[in-house]
Amino acid sequence: MSKESYVERITPQDENFSRWYTDVVRGAELADYAPVRGCIVVRPHGYAIWENIQGGLDARFKETGVQNAYFPMLIPESIFAKEAEHIEGFAPEVPWVTHAGGEELQERLGIRPSSETIIGTMFAKWVESYRDLPLLINQWCSVMRWEKATYPFLRTSEFLWQEGHTCHRDEEEARKRAEMMIEVYRDFIEETLAIPVAVGLKSESEKFAGAIDTFTVEALMQDGRALQAGTSHYLGDGFAEVLGIEYLDEDGHLKPVHQTSWGVSHRLIGGLIMVHGDNRGLVLPPAIAPVQVVVVPIYRDDTRDAVLGACEQLEQELADLRVHVDDREEHTPGWKFNEWELRGTPLRVELGPRDLENDQVMLVRRDTGDKTPIPRAELVTTASETLDAIQKDMYGKARKFREDNTHRAESVDELDALMKGERGFVLGGWCGSSECEAKIKAETGATIRCLPFGEHKYGSGTCLSCSKQNVPAVIFARAY
Amino acid sequence: MSKESYVERITPQDENFSRWYTDVVRGAELADYAPVRGCIVVRPHGYAIWENIQGGLDARFKETGVQNAYFPMLIPESIFAKEAEHIEGFAPEVPWVTHAGGEELQERLGIRPSSETIIGTMFAKWVESYRDLPLLINQWCSVMRWEKATYPFLRTSEFLWQEGHTCHRDEEEARKRAEMMIEVYRDFIEETLAIPVAVGLKSESEKFAGAIDTFTVEALMQDGRALQAGTSHYLGDGFAEVLGIEYLDEDGHLKPVHQTSWGVSHRLIGGLIMVHGDNRGLVLPPAIAPVQVVVVPIYRDDTRDAVLGACEQLEQELADLRVHVDDREEHTPGWKFNEWELRGTPLRVELGPRDLENDQVMLVRRDTGDKTPIPRAELVTTASETLDAIQKDMYGKARKFREDNTHRAESVDELDALMKGERGFVLGGWCGSSECEAKIKAETGATIRCLPFGEHKYGSGTCLSCSKQNVPAVIFARAY
Repeated sequence: MSKESYVERITPQDENFSRWYTDVVRGAELADYAPVRGCIVVRPHGYAIWENIQGGLDARFKETGVQNAYFPMLIPESIFAKEAEHIEGFAPEVPWVTHAGGEELQERLGIRPSSETIIGTMFAKWVESYRDLPLLINQWCSVMRWEKATYPFLRTSEFLWQEGHTCHRDEEEARKRAEMMIEVYRDFIEETLAIPVAVGLKSESEKFAGAIDTFTVEALMQDGRALQAGTSHYLGDGFAEVLGIEYLDEDGHLKPVHQTSWGVSHRLIGGLIMVHGDNRGLVLPPAIAPVQVVVVPIYRDDTRDAVLGACEQLEQELADLRVHVDDREEHTPGWKFNEWELRGTPLRVELGPRDLENDQVMLVRRDTGDKTPIPRAELVTTASETLDAIQKDMYGKARKFREDNTHRAESVDELDALMKGERGFVLGGWCGSSECEAKIKAETGATIRCLPFGEHKYGSGTCLSCSKQNVPAVIFARAY
Repeated sequence: MSKESYVERITPQDENFSRWYTDVVRGAELADYAPVRGCIVVRPHGYAIWENIQGGLDARFKETGVQNAYFPMLIPESIFAKEAEHIEGFAPEVPWVTHAGGEELQERLGIRPSSETIIGTMFAKWVESYRDLPLLINQWCSVMRWEKATYPFLRTSEFLWQEGHTCHRDEEEARKRAEMMIEVYRDFIEETLAIPVAVGLKSESEKFAGAIDTFTVEALMQDGRALQAGTSHYLGDGFAEVLGIEYLDEDGHLKPVHQTSWGVSHRLIGGLIMVHGDNRGLVLPPAIAPVQVVVVPIYRDDTRDAVLGACEQLEQELADLRVHVDDREEHTPGWKFNEWELRGTPLRVELGPRDLENDQVMLVRRDTGDKTPIPRAELVTTASETLDAIQKDMYGKARKFREDNTHRAESVDELDALMKGERGFVLGGWCGSSECEAKIKAETGATIRCLPFGEHKYGSGTCLSCSKQNVPAVIFARAY
């Protein structure tokens, strides 16, 4: 399909949600399929969103003392294999380099699916004393996990992400860090991406390969499926034991460090699309939008110069915002309206000859479609205020959607009925056994998204499978 | 060697320049060797410099209309092989993925050494009309070129870089872009890194595999060797022809685009070390230094609180600069002085009880070692002014070094004598033939670094090899 046809029409959500999703991805020029299995190209509009995600998270990481570094993308198999659960979990998805420099390698090298082992190997060289702790490192990079099917941003063989890796003196400090980082993710995703998330622990079967505990933030998409938006792991001292990351403590004893790792990926862009998008395309929260305000001039030959001149002036007045004047000659204003809506730009300013005469502009909200004439002198203030309102309203709308789509189930049958119907988050009791978890999954397709913890707890119930009483309520859902 | 021993002593430059270099890399914690052949780990101090390089260049790119995107790291061999010169130049250095997802692949996939072919394949999908041009894309990523020997930042199998790729309607516009980008590099490297560079064209034998013309910026290191600091290529329509990147022009004809590509890598950090460093370690220009001002408190038990309190206040006063208070308990002030000098921090503020009494601080310049007492009330202004002076003086010093180490040669023997002695840049005539170039290289070890162009021309001379008269003078040097 050509770009033009996407601007004219994308598949409606209720006709086919997954086609709607890929139409938005391609029509808004967020990404394109690449000629490499399972891989996408992140196009400039998608990458600009990623840069804003990076900027927001990176500042938050650094505020907590984290420093960035860069480690090799290739991991020798002998190093990768050191932690048994880790290699068991990841090896099936790893691409292997067997030849380089014109010859066969003595040991094959895996492209990182996650860097615990290679980074841990370096930590073992760097950590000597308790004074070197905590060691707080983050890496922005791409990783690979070989996939059979491609779903842009959500499931791709290569994806952009960040991975934080930290070393601590003891379990308590490491657990605090793992919880701190899941809270950093929650705060960023809710405040900046306007996506409400549930926070909790993963069950044994869903946690990271090699972790003791995995914390997660889970979002609800408009098709009623859950998206794991970020995870943070308390790794214990397992990697430290096998990689030899030890420190001399104040008491003169050599001890293994306790570690965490945590990451979010470009699937957050998939989350943005599926939480906020509508039948006209992407809807971006102002805090993350590469262009917050687009100015579209409306003119004929005789009014061209006056209108374009006024638009340029608006651009200068709005310079504190991310503003763009769309002065392309080859498209009609109506076509431009559609394209900027498809691309999710939060606010549109329309300016034509009649607006010039009346000393006003037309302000159009992407999220609600509201169209309001505004006196030109008030534009700067009103635009700012409206962007703030959009950010707040988008979060509120997504939050309400989640509330409307969160149900309680008292039995597997009830859960199954909900999964076959509107889906969403379902709260239900779980006794904690892997058998019950597997049985519920087999019968309903729903997995345990998380065991809410701390202030996120939902109370207790009866295990959906074995009917054990007074067990914690967990969140079930079908997930991406 | 432990970190402590580097702080105590690094190899002096004139004892062994290359050992001095690796001592600085490791002692200043810029990078470390990785357990993967030819690879390094860029440690936080090195990565923070890289982030500042990224920030400075990225803003300059965007000012010229360039947008960032991300393309797959793996390139199918059939795509990589399409441009004959390109694959011939790069194939010997490519690592190949042959297995993934637990099975052998039908076609092997190369890890990108540069992305002309994979990006060009996407350009062919995106470019339809002259209205889509120019297309200006940049990618920040790592690439791989298999190396036998590792020299941190300068020669590593994997390295961090950016690669710009553009499409244009005709040769003139593409050539302008290639020249514009080499000028962007020159400006950034001279203004921000304080490294003077020569600008010119590469000879046939030294240009990029697949390019028609390669422009380069060449810097002179303190050991008299040249470093290629950045390149920009006019690619003509060769890649467009084989990849099918065509556009419908205004005249109704389908035409191949004319392309450029351009890149700089983390070898710029190697350049910073070798241009500015001294026997105490790294010397960073203030514009690129992650920490511009370090405050070192000097106290005993009874003066601790007063001194640390005053240092915190200084930190707040200096908040417009990148300032850090080194309040570690486990090191003496003298040890800290050495470590911050090794790390290249431009300005040090020392504050002790006597300074408190006299309402002053001690200001120490890293580049000159000058120590000046400053009234506390003047610190903010003086620190800013001193940083500006350091930036200017460092460029001036490097420029003078280059002038003092630029000579003229009238014959191969003279060039050879210069190469055996102090080396540096040598201006000499070259007739333009590959035979003379190869002969000169074989006899002297010197390569043609560039053919200065435009305002950078050095006039004419006699070909060092064949004695042809009135040929352009070019720059010869031994190079990294």
